[in-house]
Amino acid sequence: MSRYKDYQLIEKLSNVVGNEVTLRGWVYNQRGKGKLQFIILRDGTGIAQCVVFRDNVTEEVFESAKRITQESSLSVTGVVRADERAPGGFEIDVTDLKIIQIAQDYPIAKKEHGDAFLMKHRHLWLRSSRQHAILRVRAAVIKAIRDFFDGSGFTLVDSPILTPNACEGTSTLFETKYFDLGSAYLSQSGQLYAEAGAFALGRVYTFGPTFRAELSSTRKHLTEFWMVEPEMAFFDLEDDMDLAEDFVEYIVQYVLKTCRKELEILERDTTKLENIKRPFYRMSYTDAVDWLVKNDIPIIKKIDNQDVEIRPFPWGEDFGTVQEEAFMEQFDKPCIIHHYPTEVKAFYMKRDESNPKVVCALDMLGPEKAGELIGGSQREDNFDLLLERIKAENLPEEAFEWYLDLRRYGSVPHSGFGLGVERTVKWITGAKHIRECIPMPRMIDRIYP
Amino acid sequence: MSRYKDYQLIEKLSNVVGNEVTLRGWVYNQRGKGKLQFIILRDGTGIAQCVVFRDNVTEEVFESAKRITQESSLSVTGVVRADERAPGGFEIDVTDLKIIQIAQDYPIAKKEHGDAFLMKHRHLWLRSSRQHAILRVRAAVIKAIRDFFDGSGFTLVDSPILTPNACEGTSTLFETKYFDLGSAYLSQSGQLYAEAGAFALGRVYTFGPTFRAELSSTRKHLTEFWMVEPEMAFFDLEDDMDLAEDFVEYIVQYVLKTCRKELEILERDTTKLENIKRPFYRMSYTDAVDWLVKNDIPIIKKIDNQDVEIRPFPWGEDFGTVQEEAFMEQFDKPCIIHHYPTEVKAFYMKRDESNPKVVCALDMLGPEKAGELIGGSQREDNFDLLLERIKAENLPEEAFEWYLDLRRYGSVPHSGFGLGVERTVKWITGAKHIRECIPMPRMIDRIYP
Repeated sequence: MSRYKDYQLIEKLSNVVGNEVTLRGWVYNQRGKGKLQFIILRDGTGIAQCVVFRDNVTEEVFESAKRITQESSLSVTGVVRADERAPGGFEIDVTDLKIIQIAQDYPIAKKEHGDAFLMKHRHLWLRSSRQHAILRVRAAVIKAIRDFFDGSGFTLVDSPILTPNACEGTSTLFETKYFDLGSAYLSQSGQLYAEAGAFALGRVYTFGPTFRAELSSTRKHLTEFWMVEPEMAFFDLEDDMDLAEDFVEYIVQYVLKTCRKELEILERDTTKLENIKRPFYRMSYTDAVDWLVKNDIPIIKKIDNQDVEIRPFPWGEDFGTVQEEAFMEQFDKPCIIHHYPTEVKAFYMKRDESNPKVVCALDMLGPEKAGELIGGSQREDNFDLLLERIKAENLPEEAFEWYLDLRRYGSVPHSGFGLGVERTVKWITGAKHIRECIPMPRMIDRIYP
Repeated sequence: MSRYKDYQLIEKLSNVVGNEVTLRGWVYNQRGKGKLQFIILRDGTGIAQCVVFRDNVTEEVFESAKRITQESSLSVTGVVRADERAPGGFEIDVTDLKIIQIAQDYPIAKKEHGDAFLMKHRHLWLRSSRQHAILRVRAAVIKAIRDFFDGSGFTLVDSPILTPNACEGTSTLFETKYFDLGSAYLSQSGQLYAEAGAFALGRVYTFGPTFRAELSSTRKHLTEFWMVEPEMAFFDLEDDMDLAEDFVEYIVQYVLKTCRKELEILERDTTKLENIKRPFYRMSYTDAVDWLVKNDIPIIKKIDNQDVEIRPFPWGEDFGTVQEEAFMEQFDKPCIIHHYPTEVKAFYMKRDESNPKVVCALDMLGPEKAGELIGGSQREDNFDLLLERIKAENLPEEAFEWYLDLRRYGSVPHSGFGLGVERTVKWITGAKHIRECIPMPRMIDRIYP
C-alpha cells in the first residue's frame, strides 16, 4: 500500500464515520462565537464542517482556529460524525489543528467582483464552488466523449497542432516560424488528418486543442478551444447524423448520471437535460429558410456601417446567432439542419449528387440558446471535384497533395463532424460565459494568467 | 438501431459465421491462379481473406477481382467461414464484389522504402499493419492514462497551449503574435497551471500536446509531443514516486491485457513487459554517480569541438543518454533516480531541507534503453525561496505573479510529474523510431504532411 493512498479525502468520509482522521485542505469559510469555531474546510474533493470546541482542544489550537483566514491551509484532526445539516454532510469534532500557512488578504472575497478582476485572478477563482462544478462537468464531458468513441470501435488518432497548410484560409491562423521550413500554423481542425486516419483504421477520432486567430471575434469567443472530431470510412450523411445524435445523447445522459451534485450547485434545470434523447429534430436548410421567411426573421447585414434588416431571409445566406436562436425557440431538443448551400460551406464537403447547389453538410444546433454544437459533413471523395474546389478557392494545391492522395488510392465515401467542448459544457452547465468553461481561457484581449 | 451500426466490421465476423455479409474495405494483398482469386481485405478493424471462385460468381465479378490492385477500395459480399489457417481467422466465399475505386500505382509497395520516403507518405504509411499496431497501442496507452487518473479521484484540468511566459526560458519556444498583447509561446509544460488546479481541486492532471523548438535536437526528437502531468496537493516526493510506479505499472499491464494482437504483430517480447510490476528500483542521484564512477562510465563533453571523455564522472553533472543506458543495463524494470543537484534542475523544484544542494526531484528511467519516461518533483512551496529562484534565473517576475500567488494564499506541500506519451509508446511497442509513435510526427526537418 502506497502512503499516498492513506490520505483521508473529504469525499471518502462516509467510510470512516466514528473514526479520528486527519484532513488537509483550505478554509472555505469560517465563523465563531464564544467557545465555538466553525471552519468549512475544502480539499478539492468536497467540503466538511470542522467544529472547534474550546473545551476539547488546547488553548494554542483554539487560538489558531480563531486566527485563520479564508484560503489559509490547514491540517485538521478530529472525529467524523455524519450530520445531514452540515455542509457536505459530515462534521469533524476537532481534536487538533495545524496551520500550514495563513493566507493574508485573499483577493476574492464573498462580495461580487467584476469580470476583468475574476479573469485576472483565474488561478484563484478556480477555487470557488461554481468554478469547481463547471470544471468537474467539463472533465465528465471529456470522459464521456472518450468513452463513447473508445467503446464504439473508434481509434484515437491525434492530429498535429503545427501544420504547414490552412484548412480554411490563412487569415485567421496563428503563425510561427518553423526552423528552415518557413512558417507553421496552429491547427484550426484536425479533420484532414482524421480522414487519413479513417482510411487506415476505419473509424477514428482526433481530440485536442484548436485555434482561431479571428480578430472579428467578440470577447465571448475563445481563441483556443478543444474539439473532438470523429471521422468514419463508409459513412454517408445519414450515418453521420445518426452518430451525432447518439453521441450528444450519450454525453448529456452521462453528465446527468455522474454530476448530479455539480448540476445542483449550478442550479441547472435538469428536466431539460433528461429530455435530451434520440430522436432529435432534423430539417433541411431549405425548409429552415422557409420557416425563417414564414416567421418574418430577417437577416442583418452591415451596409455603410449600419445594421440593416433584410426581409425575407434570402436562400443562400448562412445563419447567424439571430436566426439560430429564433429558429431553435420551437425546439426542446437539438435540431440538425442539413444540406446547406455549397457557397457557404468548406471546400472539402461533398456536393449533393442530385443538386450540386447544396452540400451534404450538417449543423446541430442546441436548445436554450446553446448555438452550434456540431458541424460536420460527408466529404468530397471524388478526386476531380475536390481538385476543382481547391483551385476555385485558390488554396495552395501542393500543400494538399497528400490530402488528394486519399482520393487517388482507394477513395471511399466517408463522413465526420466536430463538436466543441466548451460550447457543450456551456450548454449543459448553463454557464453564463464560455470563458468559465475552460480552466485558462484565451481570448483576443486575454492571455494571462 | 442506427443504420451505421449495421455495417459489418471484420473484427465482428465471429458473430456471423455461416451468414452472407457485405464487407467494405481496401485490398491489402491479393494473388490468384486459374479459377481462384484470393483477396486480403482490410477495413481498419482487421483483415479477412476473400476467396473468389469463378464458378460462384458472374464473369463480370471475376474479371473485377482480377483487375484490382493494392489499396483499391471494394465492397465484397459473401458467406463467412471460420478458418484458422486464413489470415485474420475467417474466409469469405465471395458471391458478389463491387469496385469502389481502383488505386493506380500505390506508392508504398511491399519492397523496403527509405525513411524519408515513408515519412513523406505518412498519410499512406499509416495503412501498414505495423503502423496500425503502434497506433492502436498508442490509443491504449492514452486510454490507460485517462482511466488511471479518472479512477483515482483526479480531475482533468486542461492547461493552455498559448502562454505568456516560458516555463524554462524562451530560447526553445515557438513564438506567435497574439493580437495587441505581444507574443504568445506554445506551452512546453502545463505544470504551472496544473499547480493552480491542484490548489483548487486537490488532485488534477493536464494532458495535451507540448512543444520544444530546440535546434539542438536530433532528427530523432519530436518538436510536438503529448505529455500527461498529474499534480497533487499534499504529496511529498515519496508519494510522488509511489504514484509514478503505480501509474507506469498500470499502463504497461493495461496494454498487455488489451493489445496482445498488436504486440504480436510488432514481435515484442512480452515477458519483459509482464515483469513491469511494483516495486521498481530506486536510487539517489549521489548513489547513481557512485555506480557510474565504480563502473568507469565517463561523461562526454565537447571541448574545442571534440568529444572528450572525462573520468571519473563528476558529481553535479546531469546524466545523458550514455550514462542512462549504461546505468539501466543492470535493471529489468524502471528505476527512479531521485534528489538531483539543484543546479541541473528547474527553478520550481523544492530544495531538500536537510541538504539544499539537491532538490526533491525524480526521473524514472526505463529498461531496454527506454530512456527517461517520467520527470517530476516536489514543488517549492515557500514564497521567499521560490521568488529567490525566479530572480536568480532572471525570469520575468511579473509573468510569474499568478504563480507566486499560489504560495501567498494557502501554500501547501505538493508534487507532480510528467510522462511523455511517445517515449512510453516507443518503449512498450519496441518501435525503432519515436516518429512512428505519433500519427503525424513533427521534427526539425519535417512538417509535412
